[in-house]
Amino acid sequence: MLAARLYAAKDLRIEDMPEPEPGPGEVKIRVAHAGICGTDVHEYFEAPRATHEPNPLTGATLPQTLGHEFAGTVVARGADVGRAAPGDRVCVRPIRTCGVCPRCTAGLAHLCTALAAIGVTSPGGGLAEYVVVPEDSVHRLPDGLSLEQGALVEPMAVALNAVERAQVHAGGSALVSGAGAVGMGALFALKAKGVRDVLVVEPSPSRRAAAERHGARVLDPGAVDVADEVMRHTGGRGVDAAIECSGRVDALNVAIRSLAARAPVVMVALYSGPVVIDASVVRLAELALLGAEAYPDGVFERVMEHMAAGRFPTDGWLDHIPLADAVAGLYDVRDARRVKVLVDLQDVT
Amino acid sequence: MLAARLYAAKDLRIEDMPEPEPGPGEVKIRVAHAGICGTDVHEYFEAPRATHEPNPLTGATLPQTLGHEFAGTVVARGADVGRAAPGDRVCVRPIRTCGVCPRCTAGLAHLCTALAAIGVTSPGGGLAEYVVVPEDSVHRLPDGLSLEQGALVEPMAVALNAVERAQVHAGGSALVSGAGAVGMGALFALKAKGVRDVLVVEPSPSRRAAAERHGARVLDPGAVDVADEVMRHTGGRGVDAAIECSGRVDALNVAIRSLAARAPVVMVALYSGPVVIDASVVRLAELALLGAEAYPDGVFERVMEHMAAGRFPTDGWLDHIPLADAVAGLYDVRDARRVKVLVDLQDVT
Repeated sequence: MLAARLYAAKDLRIEDMPEPEPGPGEVKIRVAHAGICGTDVHEYFEAPRATHEPNPLTGATLPQTLGHEFAGTVVARGADVGRAAPGDRVCVRPIRTCGVCPRCTAGLAHLCTALAAIGVTSPGGGLAEYVVVPEDSVHRLPDGLSLEQGALVEPMAVALNAVERAQVHAGGSALVSGAGAVGMGALFALKAKGVRDVLVVEPSPSRRAAAERHGARVLDPGAVDVADEVMRHTGGRGVDAAIECSGRVDALNVAIRSLAARAPVVMVALYSGPVVIDASVVRLAELALLGAEAYPDGVFERVMEHMAAGRFPTDGWLDHIPLADAVAGLYDVRDARRVKVLVDLQDVT
Repeated sequence: MLAARLYAAKDLRIEDMPEPEPGPGEVKIRVAHAGICGTDVHEYFEAPRATHEPNPLTGATLPQTLGHEFAGTVVARGADVGRAAPGDRVCVRPIRTCGVCPRCTAGLAHLCTALAAIGVTSPGGGLAEYVVVPEDSVHRLPDGLSLEQGALVEPMAVALNAVERAQVHAGGSALVSGAGAVGMGALFALKAKGVRDVLVVEPSPSRRAAAERHGARVLDPGAVDVADEVMRHTGGRGVDAAIECSGRVDALNVAIRSLAARAPVVMVALYSGPVVIDASVVRLAELALLGAEAYPDGVFERVMEHMAAGRFPTDGWLDHIPLADAVAGLYDVRDARRVKVLVDLQDVT
């Protein structure tokens, strides 16, 4: 089978390799689509989190097959697999947790101090024709959800958790900075929660167009002073919440200056370089900077319910590419030329 | 009368000037004690917030009489003053608010966008033998509270608001960084809320001794790796909250690394220079960085109740100096040689 395997920063190889076979408690999935994510961009351009030393939790080493946002069809299962069966259309919750650290035992396993993830620091990944995963990572797709939607459950779960962290109330206003996939998901999640007024800040015209098509008021940070514009728009009050999805420190501080008193900004992006915050504004407005990571238990299920109800539409922001173009896809995501790139591993939708 | 008036950074003059007389709605207070605060240190050593242009809200200009933490006795009142009367022993809530901005009208007047303060950006201040203040800023001291305690109500209100922002539960654990007056107040407030285990980080031996005397487990950041020590002490879990009172960016990041998952760090200090945060830890542990500023309505009253119940003890952390030594007092506070310096304006306690 073909797989996209990361050997080192900027060394991703599309290789032919044997199909993996499921061991006890594992299932083998024929992958339909796998998304390219900001995390993949970090892994590829900066430093892979996988190393030549085995990962303490999963034993994975470089080369690491990338791809942690994917959906496909179960084609085989190992011993002791009770729930999943061949033919099941599934998506995968890729995080692997230790189960014993204080966060795991406190019900916050998604913040496990030894956290690993399929496609990042765990054997196998979705950028391959087949992948073997533990049965407990598999979520069956409800009837009516496509495998394309299935591949979006993971990034939409990141977005939904970020929005849930903000505890924004229906009827309020919110700012989203960055209209990549998580930014689009934050827009959908905010609208799903009844937030009336969602402003999306995004320098890329094509990403702005995607956000506007789905009901956002869009702002180009190259053309307007975003914080001034937000204050004008909200009568000097500021927005009730901000979801920072851009990974840009300047955008984080624009969000900080755009908030109402005591409002939260959720930091869900990865940042390169030092993150300098405007601490004076944080203090003088009693703001809340909240980290958001992955997805607690239950978020995948809620995303699929929202998708089934049409609240995470897929029109206007997806591009499909073949596996052979994976590296070009990484550049496209890094340079914000696309909103979301899905790699098609099979001729299935 | 004598007053300490700030003409410019590092230019504080003890001058003889006419006693102020109360206009309509104002009272004249004979000041007993006025505390020197980290804000005064910023005003003196960096740049005064008062300018030669009249403050938009209060009309105050340089020179500015310093002193916003004070208590004394009402000696005269102007027309239309109903509540306060000569002989009342009072402390003063120094913040002045516009009453019309979105924060004032939303019940968060302490975050008023035009906020000014007596002794900072409003005519008069407590580092004077007499001061005239609006009647609505005056709080009568309960019987049994000394004027010395009265001068501490303001900094203890800053500390109590910071602790209330953290919403820490009884029985939990907390880290306080910096054992200046606000750090000591945070220690008292945490103990008052039933927090079992309060760790105080402080490089100064005399400040550590004061915190230890009042029930803190103290840590010297020059001698131990504080985050490692906190993790050891909490079985790898981290503390339930941190109150950052030191104004040091390195201490803020130590606090960040010492927290349990989803725990808050309250930023109540002023920082000089860029505030670089460890955003990766904030995200991976879903932490909350919360600003805390001054004191919402009701906090002064709650501080005085705690004081009356003996929960803000005054032993072991107060130094008294005469007005003539005010500049030396500013150096002492800046260099952390004292916890709290009170300037005595009268021979009254």
